[in-house]
Amino acid sequence: MSKIAIDIMGGDYAPDEIIKGCVLATKDIDSTLVLVGKEEVIREKLSAYTYDESKIEIMHADEVIEMGESPVMAIRKKKNSSMVVGLKLVKEKQVDGMISAGSTGALLTGATLIVGRIKGVERPAMAPFIPTQTGCSLLIDCGANVDAKPQYLEQFARMGTVYVEECLQIKNPKVGLVNIGTEEEKGNQLTKEAFKLLSESEGINFYGNVEARDIPQGLVDILVCDGFTGNVILKFMEGFGKWLLGMIKVEFLKNIKTKIAALFMKQGISTIKEKFDVAKKGGAPFLGINGLVVKTHGSSKSQEIYSTILQTEGFIKENLVEKLKAKFEENIN
Amino acid sequence: MSKIAIDIMGGDYAPDEIIKGCVLATKDIDSTLVLVGKEEVIREKLSAYTYDESKIEIMHADEVIEMGESPVMAIRKKKNSSMVVGLKLVKEKQVDGMISAGSTGALLTGATLIVGRIKGVERPAMAPFIPTQTGCSLLIDCGANVDAKPQYLEQFARMGTVYVEECLQIKNPKVGLVNIGTEEEKGNQLTKEAFKLLSESEGINFYGNVEARDIPQGLVDILVCDGFTGNVILKFMEGFGKWLLGMIKVEFLKNIKTKIAALFMKQGISTIKEKFDVAKKGGAPFLGINGLVVKTHGSSKSQEIYSTILQTEGFIKENLVEKLKAKFEENIN
Repeated sequence: MSKIAIDIMGGDYAPDEIIKGCVLATKDIDSTLVLVGKEEVIREKLSAYTYDESKIEIMHADEVIEMGESPVMAIRKKKNSSMVVGLKLVKEKQVDGMISAGSTGALLTGATLIVGRIKGVERPAMAPFIPTQTGCSLLIDCGANVDAKPQYLEQFARMGTVYVEECLQIKNPKVGLVNIGTEEEKGNQLTKEAFKLLSESEGINFYGNVEARDIPQGLVDILVCDGFTGNVILKFMEGFGKWLLGMIKVEFLKNIKTKIAALFMKQGISTIKEKFDVAKKGGAPFLGINGLVVKTHGSSKSQEIYSTILQTEGFIKENLVEKLKAKFEENIN
Repeated sequence: MSKIAIDIMGGDYAPDEIIKGCVLATKDIDSTLVLVGKEEVIREKLSAYTYDESKIEIMHADEVIEMGESPVMAIRKKKNSSMVVGLKLVKEKQVDGMISAGSTGALLTGATLIVGRIKGVERPAMAPFIPTQTGCSLLIDCGANVDAKPQYLEQFARMGTVYVEECLQIKNPKVGLVNIGTEEEKGNQLTKEAFKLLSESEGINFYGNVEARDIPQGLVDILVCDGFTGNVILKFMEGFGKWLLGMIKVEFLKNIKTKIAALFMKQGISTIKEKFDVAKKGGAPFLGINGLVVKTHGSSKSQEIYSTILQTEGFIKENLVEKLKAKFEENIN
């Protein structure tokens, strides 16, 4: 039976919402959850709930890594933080996966330094799914590598391919390179060189360049880019979507007629909002780490923690990390 | 009295819509328009309209630069193209400005090679306004410099400052650096170095980093970034906005009730759409060129050509290029 460590102290709503999410998940998982954090706090919060006690263990850790801290310093100095203790459990294979809603930078640094990389992967990547017209696309990388080299992008494509095959059960998923034009010769130095590598790489179903304008069409299953570009796309989508929906709300509230319109469109608007609802989608594993480390949003509440736990159990059952390793060992041998 | 050259052969709807836009503009401008392109075609198309003939001149040019052509090759080989002939008119000061809806790459290359750069500007930039909650922000650069150096970004900030002061009559406009975090130490190598330069640069009202998520809030008047990032933001906004509004349309068409809602919300939706309507906004001058060269959308129809002509006349009256030159001469001396 598998075990999943949860960083109880990471995230905007820690520890209350994280613990609540764990309790919710106990009903629907086979795994045991290892709650990592201040033991007395965890015990006190848990006492408010009724749940299957065989599914929850506690691992004491009395330090907390805060959002503003320098990732490297925090990981090095706070040896007894919930995040570092959780990552060590992964490293020592005492758990099969670990979830945190804490600082992305610290978690990535910690995962790389403590758990280590898969052989053949130069840089781990953060890769969430973004909604598209036809479903969703994996956007890799979204911030782990802000100064990328062409070969990183090729590795992202390979990692993304394994992940999407597992997650979405899409055989031979299509990989697109985010670029400023569709023609081969378009782009900056990075994308021009990455285009060549991706074209020549075996085991990648390379579609070609995808202009940012066409991203919402869902032309490809995997969108490859450097972490700066991916982060800009991800965050702009969030901010711009919120603004547009906000403008529509203002118009709906204008007068009696538009308020009636709002009533008639209630279902429609929630259908659209649901498409962008991150809470149901859970977290994103750091691809390329030699162990399962899943980052979930800093603003996660219990529902998102619940989803991320179920998702993580799925990754464990599917042997995601082993499959990624196999893909890269193939290339090394 | 000023003169404006128009590339009649550039753009998806050339020459018909370009000529129609020119005729429309004759009613509302003081300038004379110099229509550059195949004389017989221009004469034939013009014969369909009644207009003040003293306001239109024709300059024959029998070649056309197509969208797919290599910019450098096209500019070098097609000496008698409407674009090259128009740019030469600017260089020789026979006109006070030039407008084209043709290939952006070719127009930028041509402007740089034929008209030349302002002293002190290493790279000209393309800078359109993007809509925000509070009005609009200038996004500089949007594709002219896909591999930028930190000092280019500092120069973009200075050019943007002059342009926004002129265009929007905002004194001492706020400049933000597009980045993946708000803290000074966040970003890639380019933005980290640019942050320092922008902080130290005199005559720039530097706000700090702006995350892509916050761009729609309109926190700053000018958003500085490399051309790759700017192009991604601009095009993603276009594609994502279209998709979101398309989804809303689908929901409005679902049943009788939602169709009534659509009727009640007609005004509201068009208010929102207007915010994103490029046709009314006109084109964008290449900032840093030693003459006025204005690029308008490839998909421009007569209404956008009309707007761009009026806008260009405004730039001439405001002495935009002279003011930009003065700003950079100041720094050289």
